[in-house]
Amino acid sequence: MTGKLRIAIVGYGKIAQDQHVPSIAANPRFALAATVSRSTSGVPDIPNFSSHTDMLAAVKDLDAVAICTPPSVRYGIARDCIAAGLHALLEKPPGVSLSEVEELARLAGEKPVTLFTTWHAQHNPPVPAAAALLKGQRVAAMRIEWRENVRKWHPGQAWVWEPGGFGVFDPGINALSIATRIFPGALFVREAELFFPANKQAPIAANLRFESPASEGKLEAVFDWRETGGETWTIALRTEQGDDILLADGGARLVRNGQEEAAPGPGEYPSLYEEFASLIDARTSHVDLSPLRLAADAFLVGRRTLVEAFED
Amino acid sequence: MTGKLRIAIVGYGKIAQDQHVPSIAANPRFALAATVSRSTSGVPDIPNFSSHTDMLAAVKDLDAVAICTPPSVRYGIARDCIAAGLHALLEKPPGVSLSEVEELARLAGEKPVTLFTTWHAQHNPPVPAAAALLKGQRVAAMRIEWRENVRKWHPGQAWVWEPGGFGVFDPGINALSIATRIFPGALFVREAELFFPANKQAPIAANLRFESPASEGKLEAVFDWRETGGETWTIALRTEQGDDILLADGGARLVRNGQEEAAPGPGEYPSLYEEFASLIDARTSHVDLSPLRLAADAFLVGRRTLVEAFED
Repeated sequence: MTGKLRIAIVGYGKIAQDQHVPSIAANPRFALAATVSRSTSGVPDIPNFSSHTDMLAAVKDLDAVAICTPPSVRYGIARDCIAAGLHALLEKPPGVSLSEVEELARLAGEKPVTLFTTWHAQHNPPVPAAAALLKGQRVAAMRIEWRENVRKWHPGQAWVWEPGGFGVFDPGINALSIATRIFPGALFVREAELFFPANKQAPIAANLRFESPASEGKLEAVFDWRETGGETWTIALRTEQGDDILLADGGARLVRNGQEEAAPGPGEYPSLYEEFASLIDARTSHVDLSPLRLAADAFLVGRRTLVEAFED
Repeated sequence: MTGKLRIAIVGYGKIAQDQHVPSIAANPRFALAATVSRSTSGVPDIPNFSSHTDMLAAVKDLDAVAICTPPSVRYGIARDCIAAGLHALLEKPPGVSLSEVEELARLAGEKPVTLFTTWHAQHNPPVPAAAALLKGQRVAAMRIEWRENVRKWHPGQAWVWEPGGFGVFDPGINALSIATRIFPGALFVREAELFFPANKQAPIAANLRFESPASEGKLEAVFDWRETGGETWTIALRTEQGDDILLADGGARLVRNGQEEAAPGPGEYPSLYEEFASLIDARTSHVDLSPLRLAADAFLVGRRTLVEAFED
């Protein structure tokens, strides 16, 4: 290990400010070298650029980039950064189509640089702990409930409602990323009902039914962005042996048969940067398309129902 | 090679009658041993069953199955046939979701049996000829036009309008299967506009815009099921070197710089059964998800526009 990995953040919105900057600062392997932000001036004393091309032209000793923009523009930015020889970490979802992410994986392999398609919810320490408990089990039932208030989490954000903005799948894909990580077998979408506001291009709610060779039971998910009461981010499974496994608070808590189980670890984003450094050291990539594939499948097979228009 | 491969056809609709039965009859490697059809009595002197489970229980010396049902039920049938140790050929599209086809591939590999996800349009002899002409080229432009009259090709067929019925992507995916076969680089959907009849769950028309590392140019597709005049199934490409390559009549004709080019070969379905026999002999599978992935991507990123209700 020689020197720090000089990393730039492209897209300096809420998630970059709340999670990426502190996780980079806390990890001795990384040093924040630049930001790209059109609407802010970035981090004090760190050079900020209004486009990734300006940044690539001006900052010559970069090693890596964390791309935290909305998903629809990630492909072009990631392609240019990979072409410039940078290791690339992509916020979730890694793109708006499966084929563009597969193309990025091909480009990264060709260069070669490290490509890391992150799913931060998988890095909650209880998630691998739940996966270990479920390994080799058959599942009697699974119910995912992901209910939150879009006005609280995406106030006035138009892109979430645009084509490729994912709508309620923006949070829902976090649930899918946990489910694909912990489920003891392949999981696929059998039926989906997507609820589109009459004035929007993305669903505000969705009901999914899954199938798996590891289960004969009812496997379902409810995503709803219209929740104004208590928010819920839970995945509850019962194994055929009768064990109840509950991941609550978006994967932050593990409850087994009613008992809270400790699952220590560095936490979501610190763990994610640890893995990024390990991947770079090992000169390898980690590209996980399963959550995006389930979302794409839901749009492909989904029944669309128009619901009340949504006004921010 | 010992004896003929005894094959059953599951789903005895138009495509099975017009294409699969004659192609099986003409291929010395195969013998038709059974059909599954609820609405017909199948082929004279060949046992017919009303469900694939009845057929699997009754016919004990089967080697293979060709699954020609609507796509939404293919997974369950293919899973049972693979579990019974049969090699499986799937009509296009191989399923209604990417994840279910990946699961079938996993099951086939585990058993092991041969799984062949067919895309019949790729087996038009001009298609590999066009691929050879385009190999290593950069593409200046591509325009796909796939226009036909749904009332002629799917008269009264409700399933094409249901979720997972694909709508105009049912023919359009043939164009996508040719495009992914001939294009000299990865192809992915950048933008899509999907036109849904106000009373239907599947699009009647679509405009797609692609991107590829093998092109800086305009790459587009127009699918339209509302054509009542001349039908069109063309893929026109111009290379950066200035060659014009046109695949017309759904891949059946190749025109290079205005000159018709001969491309001899056994024809779509006969070629497809030749390949199935070769795959079985080689104890391997051929699973190509690229056309379905492009369709899924179009639904994921697509802008939905409601158009006039469609009444059969």
